[in-house]
Order: sequence, then C-alpha cells, then structure tokens
Amino acid sequence: MAKTAVLGAGSWGTAFSLVLADAGNDVHLWGRRAEVCEAINETQENPEYLPGIELPAAVKASDDPALVLADAERVVLAVPSQQLRPNLEAWAHHLRDDAVLVSLMKGVELGTHLRMSEVIAELAGAGPERIAVVTGPNLAREIALREPAASVVACADEHVAQDLQRWCHTPMFRPYTNTDVVGCELGGTTKNVIALAVGVADGLGYGDNAKASVITRGLAETARLGMAMGADPMTLAGLAGMGDLVATCSSPLSRNRTFGEKLGRGMTVDEIVASTRQVAEGVKSSDSISELAHAHGVDMPIVEHVAALIRGESSPKEMVASLVARAPKPEIH
Amino acid sequence: MAKTAVLGAGSWGTAFSLVLADAGNDVHLWGRRAEVCEAINETQENPEYLPGIELPAAVKASDDPALVLADAERVVLAVPSQQLRPNLEAWAHHLRDDAVLVSLMKGVELGTHLRMSEVIAELAGAGPERIAVVTGPNLAREIALREPAASVVACADEHVAQDLQRWCHTPMFRPYTNTDVVGCELGGTTKNVIALAVGVADGLGYGDNAKASVITRGLAETARLGMAMGADPMTLAGLAGMGDLVATCSSPLSRNRTFGEKLGRGMTVDEIVASTRQVAEGVKSSDSISELAHAHGVDMPIVEHVAALIRGESSPKEMVASLVARAPKPEIH
Repeated sequence: MAKTAVLGAGSWGTAFSLVLADAGNDVHLWGRRAEVCEAINETQENPEYLPGIELPAAVKASDDPALVLADAERVVLAVPSQQLRPNLEAWAHHLRDDAVLVSLMKGVELGTHLRMSEVIAELAGAGPERIAVVTGPNLAREIALREPAASVVACADEHVAQDLQRWCHTPMFRPYTNTDVVGCELGGTTKNVIALAVGVADGLGYGDNAKASVITRGLAETARLGMAMGADPMTLAGLAGMGDLVATCSSPLSRNRTFGEKLGRGMTVDEIVASTRQVAEGVKSSDSISELAHAHGVDMPIVEHVAALIRGESSPKEMVASLVARAPKPEIH
Repeated sequence: MAKTAVLGAGSWGTAFSLVLADAGNDVHLWGRRAEVCEAINETQENPEYLPGIELPAAVKASDDPALVLADAERVVLAVPSQQLRPNLEAWAHHLRDDAVLVSLMKGVELGTHLRMSEVIAELAGAGPERIAVVTGPNLAREIALREPAASVVACADEHVAQDLQRWCHTPMFRPYTNTDVVGCELGGTTKNVIALAVGVADGLGYGDNAKASVITRGLAETARLGMAMGADPMTLAGLAGMGDLVATCSSPLSRNRTFGEKLGRGMTVDEIVASTRQVAEGVKSSDSISELAHAHGVDMPIVEHVAALIRGESSPKEMVASLVARAPKPEIH
C-alpha cells in the first residue's frame, strides 16, 4: 500500500488522518509539537485539537518531518496557510519526486495572493497531475465523530482524483471527484470572508432572510471571480462552494462567523483580537481577495464591504444597508 | 398608479402587501374570512398571521373578490397551492384581460404536476408576458419586520419583470429580475422536500456537515431536474434556489424542516399529522416531484428517499446512510 503522510496535527489534519485510517491506510502524522505527538501515540487521542475522540491505531505521530515524509507516495498538507511556504522550503528535499501532494488548506498567501496549490507547485516543483485539494462541508469535529458528510477531491488529472477518492472513502465520508482545482480552492478561501459578513448580519440581529441573501449573493460574487480565473461556476454551486459556505455559516463554532458577529455588535477589530487572541482567516484574506477581484476586473461588493469594515472605513449597519439598497438589477449577468 | 390586488391574507400575502404599500402602492387585499379582513381594516394588523405588526394605512382588506379585483392591473396570487384552481375558476371573469398575474405560491398541483404559473396560464388564459413569480429567501415575518432581504421577480418578459421590480422595491426589500420562471418555481417547490430531508438529518442528531451536504446535493438534483425542464441552472444557484433553501433550512419556524426532524426522531407521518394537525407541503409534493423526475429521466436520490420515507418504505437512518454510501462518482455530470 502507498505510504501516506499527513503534515499538520491540528483539528482538520488529525480528523482527516482518522478518515484515512478508517479507509484502510497506515497514517504517518507530523505534528510541530513533540508533546502533542507523544500524546497521540500514547493515548490515541489529540488532547489539544480533538479531545475525547479515540484515534485508530493506524495513526502514528512524529515531530520529525524526515521520518514522516521518507518514501511517502501521498503527502497531505494541513498546516496554517501562511506557514506553508516556510514549511515546504524546509521539507522539499524530503519529498519523493513522484509524491502526490494533497492540500487541506484554505487561504491565499498574503503579499503574493497565490493559492495554496500554486505555492505547492512553486516550492515542490510539482506538475498539476501531482497536486490535489480536499475540501467541502467538513467541520473537523463532526468528521472525527464519524457523522455522515460529503466532500470533494480535486485534481486536474481525473485519474489521480479517482485514486484519491478510493484512498479516503469510508462508510461515512463520501468524496466526490472534481478536476477544477481553482474553483475548489477559491470556494474554501472566499467563504471565510462571506462567513464574516453573515456574522455581521447576525450581530446586528437580522434573521434568516438577510443571512441567506448574504450567503447567496456572496457565492454569486465568488462564482464571478472564479469564472474570471478559469474556474467552473458549477464547482462553486457544489460542495466546495455552497456546501462549505453553508456548513461554516451554520456552525456556532466558526471563527469567521463569530468574529463577524462581534463586529456586528459594535466591537472593533482590535478589541476582538485582544479578547480572543485570534485573528480569523477572513480578516487576513479580505484584502487579498479584494485585490484579486480588482486584478480580474470583477465586482465583489460583499468582499469589498468586509474589507472596508475591517479597515474601519465603514460601519456594520452601512454595510448591510448598502448591500440591500444597491440599484436594482438582474440576478444573473 | 396601477391598481394592485393581493389575493390571500395569509402570512406571506399580508407581508408582501406591507412591502407593496411601503413601495408606494395602494393595496387591495382579499381574505377568505370576513373577520380577518375586518380586523385588518379596524386595527391595521392581521392578528391571525402577523400578530403584533402594524400594517400601513394603504393596505385595505375585503372578503369580496369582485371588489378587490375590479380594474386591478396587477394581481398577486397568494392562496394555498392546492386552492389555486378552484379559486381562479371562481375569479377568472373578474380579471382584466391585460392584468399581470404575480404568483407568490410554491408547490405543484397534485395529480396534474402543473406548476402554479401553468395553472394560472390555463385558467386565466394569460400569455407568459402576463405571468410573473416572486420568490427567494423571504420568511414572511422577517419581511414584515422590515429586516433586509433580497428577492427575485421572474417573468419571461424582461420589461415586465423590470416594471414589477420597481413596483415592489423598498429600502429593505431588494428584488432582482430573472426571466427564468421555470427555474424560480422549481426552486421554491423542491426546497420543501429538501428541507424535510435536512430535518431528518437534524432529528437523527447529525451536525452541520451532514445538513450542508444534503442541502448542496439536494440543490444539485434540483438543478438537474431544472435543466431537463428548460430552466437555467444558475437560477437554482441563486436566490430562488439556494437562497430560499438556505433560509428555510436555517429557520426554526419552517414547517417542512420541523416535520422532517420529527420523522428523524422516529415518529410516523400519521403521528406527526395527528399531533400538529398540519401536513407540510413537502409531504404532499414529494411524490409529484419524484414523478416529474421520472418523466424527465432525472435521478433525484434525495427526493426519492424522502418519498419512500413518507410512504413508510424506508427508515431515517437508512435514508441518510444510503445517501452517503452511494457509489463514489464525479460531483458534476
């Protein structure tokens, strides 16, 4: 059987390791902190990120990337998106030159605006047939509890996508294949910003119509950007776009939605960061996506409004009012 | 100004009357029961369906259809979907032969499987340029509370759609135009069945991944049926499809979602009907949509499972498990 390495023992890296083990793989999991790896090996549990969930015996952890990567034919990357570049720079010489690299990460690189698969291509020197993305409505804890969920495995090479589909299919985790890597990555990245906007509507006390409107119009502008970047709009209407967005916006646990809710209640970005000691991904990526949209000549009013709100140039109420009050026009154009 | 009649003083007919009054129209509202009409005229409130919400003075109610319809150039139809045929049979001779007929109704006619606009065309003898649909993520009570929401006004004739857009646009209610009447009606009808399936997942105790997966795959099968019937799949990805579905599935008040939740907890259809004295729309329409799908050669596994569950031929757990466990395949085909 092909050796599988998973790099990153956060909640999603750990939960996906459990899926891979359930699907019959031996999983070599790298964690940055030795104590987390030891806990996983000794107690079959990740006490930091998935407390209370027993991991299969086929998941073994180590903090040594050379050991985890040695001879691995499938390498899953699940580190924080802004850490991908320095990590891959350190790891590149351990990678087999035929290894398939699977990204679980959602975000764009600050400064370069590169998608995660583009950073992987650059640093690992891998062609599109060796780069894949797993995405969809996949809240880590629910996956680890083996609740039913659908997912997407995307690779430009359909046969590779089908191999990976078999590799991670379990009775409760159902991966669909897709060849549209750009659309899949864009869906996962933009949803963080849209979830922030939905949180703002929540914080203002608005109900399900307003939130569903923001979700739907947010997906429509994501699809516009996607088409300008060569994605298939049907990808955004599927699990990687709509599915992921709906799961995130429904979850009380979403950091982006919660951050937006606090903005909607009138807190400033600095106050929220000071009280939670976390910056939600959408806060960091709203400017990058807005710049991507400008570069492609695409109108993304919700992303623009979130970016302006985060820069302190707009109020929550102005934001929602101006989204509704814009000049009436056709829905599809 | 064109005279506006609204036929049906339920929660959505009443809330849309309020929107039309806010947009500057005098609204002639027909209610079946004289006492509801009297209450509306005397207290400016519909105590039965929108208690506690003050209606604008421009809304006047009557239980006399001849009076309400006399010389009306715009006629909004907001009666229960299975009551449309007998009502229109009684009203047809009161209709101006140039009146634009606007449907707020969601459902298909049992037996004939006709969409509401088709029933209107048949009984009023109106061409497509005189038939329109208003739909979208529009929970009536939130609209009546003047919370921000987006909506869709669909008519095969774009100019008529634009006229209607101006007719109902307010600072908080933002209608988009669409010319795809079939897609708009199908989105509103099928969402009731999908909401039932989402409720079942809820009742089984599953989380946001499973629900988002059912919502997304449910919309994908709706889009397949839509395409077979001549609809634009982008309509289903918009407010009339995704938007309406997400709002309904998020709302604790949705009758369809709640009905499904009780099924998921193990109650039978008869027990639920006995305890609530209501049959959710999706319970009635699941067989009709399933038959439409067969007639068009379209695979709709979620609708099929809901129909089988309602006929007592499947259990909730079997339903969700078989949706996840189906043979792996591409997401878009």
